[in-house]
Amino acid sequence: MSSVFGKNIKISVFGESHGRAIGVVIDGLPSGFDIDTEYISREMGRRKPSAGVYSTRRNEADEVEILSGIYKGKTTGTPVGAIIRNNDSLSRDYDDLENLLRPGHADFSGLIRYKGYNDKRGSGHFSGRLTAPVVFAGAIAAQILSEYDIVIGSHIDSIYDTHDIRFDSTQITREQLNMLRSMDIPVNDRSCREAYLEIIDEARKNLDSVGGIVETAIIGVSAGIGSPLFDNIEAKLSSILFSIPAVKGVEFGEGFGITRLYGSQANDSFYLQNENIYTKTNNNGGINGGITNGMPIVFRTAIKPTSSIAKEQVTVDIKEERNAKLKVKGRHDTCIVPRAVPVIDAAAAIAILDILFDHYGLEGFNKGR
Amino acid sequence: MSSVFGKNIKISVFGESHGRAIGVVIDGLPSGFDIDTEYISREMGRRKPSAGVYSTRRNEADEVEILSGIYKGKTTGTPVGAIIRNNDSLSRDYDDLENLLRPGHADFSGLIRYKGYNDKRGSGHFSGRLTAPVVFAGAIAAQILSEYDIVIGSHIDSIYDTHDIRFDSTQITREQLNMLRSMDIPVNDRSCREAYLEIIDEARKNLDSVGGIVETAIIGVSAGIGSPLFDNIEAKLSSILFSIPAVKGVEFGEGFGITRLYGSQANDSFYLQNENIYTKTNNNGGINGGITNGMPIVFRTAIKPTSSIAKEQVTVDIKEERNAKLKVKGRHDTCIVPRAVPVIDAAAAIAILDILFDHYGLEGFNKGR
Amino acid sequence: MSSVFGKNIKISVFGESHGRAIGVVIDGLPSGFDIDTEYISREMGRRKPSAGVYSTRRNEADEVEILSGIYKGKTTGTPVGAIIRNNDSLSRDYDDLENLLRPGHADFSGLIRYKGYNDKRGSGHFSGRLTAPVVFAGAIAAQILSEYDIVIGSHIDSIYDTHDIRFDSTQITREQLNMLRSMDIPVNDRSCREAYLEIIDEARKNLDSVGGIVETAIIGVSAGIGSPLFDNIEAKLSSILFSIPAVKGVEFGEGFGITRLYGSQANDSFYLQNENIYTKTNNNGGINGGITNGMPIVFRTAIKPTSSIAKEQVTVDIKEERNAKLKVKGRHDTCIVPRAVPVIDAAAAIAILDILFDHYGLEGFNKGR
Amino acid sequence: MSSVFGKNIKISVFGESHGRAIGVVIDGLPSGFDIDTEYISREMGRRKPSAGVYSTRRNEADEVEILSGIYKGKTTGTPVGAIIRNNDSLSRDYDDLENLLRPGHADFSGLIRYKGYNDKRGSGHFSGRLTAPVVFAGAIAAQILSEYDIVIGSHIDSIYDTHDIRFDSTQITREQLNMLRSMDIPVNDRSCREAYLEIIDEARKNLDSVGGIVETAIIGVSAGIGSPLFDNIEAKLSSILFSIPAVKGVEFGEGFGITRLYGSQANDSFYLQNENIYTKTNNNGGINGGITNGMPIVFRTAIKPTSSIAKEQVTVDIKEERNAKLKVKGRHDTCIVPRAVPVIDAAAAIAILDILFDHYGLEGFNKGR
Repeated sequence: MSSVFGKNIKISVFGESHGRAIGVVIDGLPSGFDIDTEYISREMGRRKPSAGVYSTRRNEADEVEILSGIYKGKTTGTPVGAIIRNNDSLSRDYDDLENLLRPGHADFSGLIRYKGYNDKRGSGHFSGRLTAPVVFAGAIAAQILSEYDIVIGSHIDSIYDTHDIRFDSTQITREQLNMLRSMDIPVNDRSCREAYLEIIDEARKNLDSVGGIVETAIIGVSAGIGSPLFDNIEAKLSSILFSIPAVKGVEFGEGFGITRLYGSQANDSFYLQNENIYTKTNNNGGINGGITNGMPIVFRTAIKPTSSIAKEQVTVDIKEERNAKLKVKGRHDTCIVPRAVPVIDAAAAIAILDILFDHYGLEGFNKGR
Repeated sequence: MSSVFGKNIKISVFGESHGRAIGVVIDGLPSGFDIDTEYISREMGRRKPSAGVYSTRRNEADEVEILSGIYKGKTTGTPVGAIIRNNDSLSRDYDDLENLLRPGHADFSGLIRYKGYNDKRGSGHFSGRLTAPVVFAGAIAAQILSEYDIVIGSHIDSIYDTHDIRFDSTQITREQLNMLRSMDIPVNDRSCREAYLEIIDEARKNLDSVGGIVETAIIGVSAGIGSPLFDNIEAKLSSILFSIPAVKGVEFGEGFGITRLYGSQANDSFYLQNENIYTKTNNNGGINGGITNGMPIVFRTAIKPTSSIAKEQVTVDIKEERNAKLKVKGRHDTCIVPRAVPVIDAAAAIAILDILFDHYGLEGFNKGR
Repeated sequence: MSSVFGKNIKISVFGESHGRAIGVVIDGLPSGFDIDTEYISREMGRRKPSAGVYSTRRNEADEVEILSGIYKGKTTGTPVGAIIRNNDSLSRDYDDLENLLRPGHADFSGLIRYKGYNDKRGSGHFSGRLTAPVVFAGAIAAQILSEYDIVIGSHIDSIYDTHDIRFDSTQITREQLNMLRSMDIPVNDRSCREAYLEIIDEARKNLDSVGGIVETAIIGVSAGIGSPLFDNIEAKLSSILFSIPAVKGVEFGEGFGITRLYGSQANDSFYLQNENIYTKTNNNGGINGGITNGMPIVFRTAIKPTSSIAKEQVTVDIKEERNAKLKVKGRHDTCIVPRAVPVIDAAAAIAILDILFDHYGLEGFNKGR
Repeated sequence: MSSVFGKNIKISVFGESHGRAIGVVIDGLPSGFDIDTEYISREMGRRKPSAGVYSTRRNEADEVEILSGIYKGKTTGTPVGAIIRNNDSLSRDYDDLENLLRPGHADFSGLIRYKGYNDKRGSGHFSGRLTAPVVFAGAIAAQILSEYDIVIGSHIDSIYDTHDIRFDSTQITREQLNMLRSMDIPVNDRSCREAYLEIIDEARKNLDSVGGIVETAIIGVSAGIGSPLFDNIEAKLSSILFSIPAVKGVEFGEGFGITRLYGSQANDSFYLQNENIYTKTNNNGGINGGITNGMPIVFRTAIKPTSSIAKEQVTVDIKEERNAKLKVKGRHDTCIVPRAVPVIDAAAAIAILDILFDHYGLEGFNKGR
């Protein structure tokens, strides 16, 4: 119940969609790590609304101003404070909706929660825009992780009813993941890009929206990280993933599909090769008993279809206290899945860095320099 | 990375399968609540290995000794400490396996994590037996919640490839959930019981194992509980659910299935009835923007097939440093899903009580008396 | 080990003295509370360097820009983000010191901690300037507390060897505390003001510095708040007080002096008056067993003499690796005690608000509206 | 507001004085450390009521039963659960007091806090007996610290108005601290022992009680540990110290006395010797800016006189709702300071180990093996 995440690396996110600025404080970073602002910009760019078919045309500059914690291009080890100004705050589009509860949104739950005092313009603190500071924080975490050869990447596993090829979860390379990070619609099977765009375009024409599934891999994390029971690797990752708006499901390895296997199929057999121990399959997604086993960590995240749709919907007018009809105006993504990908990558980077601090400590990171 | 869960209601679980005792400390409970030990016994009984086809025959007495925090039948408001002695500790069955990494288990990840010093008998701290203290804690949490008319219940949604009827997630009654709590194989469609037992029996005959999906509902939680972003309702529930051994997926509302709906189908339309606001569907599982909307909270948890199977498996002998074969001996559940049900119910009760403390505070609970 | 404080009300402070900005995020506030920016300015003004004899002449505008969390003059219930730009960043004064470890400062401990990567200009993240965001956060907390008639105030109990009259800890009024908040040198015995200023002036002439003791009272907190053992009222207050730079001691009630009383003198006798229970003395500072007893909460905080002095000191030149001499140039407070007073008041307000949330919950605060 | 302490090493204390058992769970310990139960017994013995003049004659066996987390004499890395049975539970002595609020005790604050439902026999969860599990946990922490040459020890700085010689805070040896741990009345000036016992004996004869001050040193902690602002070394230590019953003040280095020094006296000058940096004085108690500087960490803790005295006191009868008189019967320590010493040592060990985990991580400790 908080806008603060983390135990060692703590991120504190603030802001409302149409307020003065949004931002984040990242506490607990190790000192002396080079931070490439180009890298940050690229990650922010992946989350940015593009002019493509699938996305809102809102002109979000998303220029991050770093206020502290990075000095002469390196982390100082003290908190990184960063803000993003809200330049393009036309709240007009939203005004006439104020009394109509938008289905799928947090209008009703938020109204009760905040007793009506929250800034509702552009969904306020509930806005998907709040994921921009998360991507910023994740871009810093990812750069630190990359110095230890830990790489995170995702592809869009499905949009609506169309599926990409899944990762071969025993064989995922840094190159493959970095490649995915460079694609606007990251997919393993390149032909999927067109298929996905067609589905999105059709939904848009129908004044509707679609969702999808993102599959993510984290490679380079040693075996033996984490602990059983609470706050284990799966618990921690799921906790931050369910903090991303529109996420309704998280599964590791074969996930829900593992229930349709026999134990003899689900168990990942161990084998020895060059004095290292691997598993032949990776149905457990790199985690046994809440602890990494050295195989790629693989999980999937379900993203629901965008709640804002142009189609007419039935709802309640809370001022008039009667049932009513609603057409959500304004600019909205027909499908936010492509923009969710960098947010998921960022969230995973933050969680993994936080977990690794338990294991290696501040000194372990400093030693790595 | 811890055996402690919670912010307001903190539970600290300890113990190893074949050590002297396992137990739990529950900190932060409100004072003056009647605790019915019969209720606790019933819940513990649901988790207990039964003599049925699907379960280990280990004779676990699971008698809880309450050491503190309950006085004259009521919570004192100070920590509840409770232990369960390990009476039936035949470690013989496990000894000859010590060097053979059991696939699907935490033998390898735990070995690296604990540098070989952990008590490996009966899976030690990784043992499913550690869920007994969780059930105990959950039985106390559930009794407190019930005074506020909050009820939690689950049915087995699937075993292997066979499915029960799902909850009608807009219409779930206390009677229905309490009924499920009284069934050994809780199902909505009674005919499923036989089907499930057949699947389990067949797997047992094949020296194999099966898993399944549990669907859970929480009713009676008011709208407006929780907060967006981190530690929201979904984040907190998923965090404790992924702390249960064998859980590989968690989804809320329509979960992964929501990605195969259009926005116009996925959005839950609001309507007004008798001055209350409800949703016509409940695809979001009672949660919008991380905050409850007053509808039933519904989620599903994927339980993998039992890792211990009698069938021969290939693995690594870590002492001999060579690939090897393994047949796991001893008594093992062919399917742990029925026993996972009360653990899931308990975990949900603990998480929900903890969340409600943010909202109502200690005084809010005391006032309720 | 963190720049984040709190369990329910979490404040995350960031910034370096000569970076772009300092700031704070305040998470977990209740919604709908009026925030008077004049009140905030007055509190910020109390912490501001004045032109008086005792203080640095640095021109700190300390203008706070509120970026989120306050809308139409009221708290929204979502995080308040606020920044203060660093306008007057002449780092020249500090540059030539970079290799000379300033005694009493964190130059050496910080060097090892941050491996030399921290922004050392103006003490960086160690700067007393970082208390400005704390005062801002405290001014918001204090306004919320004041709606529940909880008032906090302090007087300067001593400067060097000269003492004010202590509070009569059984009889402290709101008027008295509010009066103290309006004084530049808050004292109970008005004649102390001159005496204090003389001591400070003399120290300044001697190129030296002085410290002192601040005595603080919190009135209006009901009996029965808090818990024994960890994170109790004293533990929590001391934790935030020791986070204020230059604090070297914290004591409650008679504090260290209570060790020079017999039990029969130290025990605070209870008596009944108009159906309420009070204590005749308040040697325990309003707290028994870590829990409030309804009497004023009284504590004292020891502030060491300003570390930066113009007098020549011996130290180590870490670049040349030899013993050396040092005269700290620049503008420095001869005595920071008067400026520490609003910081202590603020820290106490933050801690008490956080503690009260455990007791009353979000709904308890909302109900108060 | 909790019975759980710590971030990495979490201790969860439970129990009531006259319940079935008290105990503790210690979560987060590194694996593979030898635990000497003799060492634990000695530490427990130091806290045990002795037959001497100063202490209660209650026959507390204080036999700890370790239930988990230690296997074959070594830490497993999983939680250590331990209980101490309450054998000698004569609640008769307390019964007739139930309606008379004992001055100095938590009877009144606890009554309001727990709405009367707490187990009041022998002060219940407020009992000094709850420090036994803390000493147990500290004895484990201290053994781990000792492998890194970190040693903690205390002497009784004063009883009532009589003082021992303080530590020379720049020169404290392991031998000196270990010696203090072996003394029943640990003092630097051996002649103090008699003086202290005389004061205590006189107080006892007067049916009264006395308190005192404990001075503690921690040596062997490297420079650069900790962080500025919240949860720094002083904040964390003070937080756990104020969790010990009867503690009313905590100060580091010269503490309150530093306010009677000029800056030129208070500042600890640095000097270089054999390529290491030391300070000539240690008025800051080994901590600058919340971070260790490599010098001994020195602090003092004020312990109030025992609240239970045989002398008649005035108070309130809450049943009869009238002012009343009270003589506390039963066995009570005239002075608990000697028994507080091992509790303070233990609390310091727990806090320091927890802090060091931030710095070195689990792997840092494992590497030390």
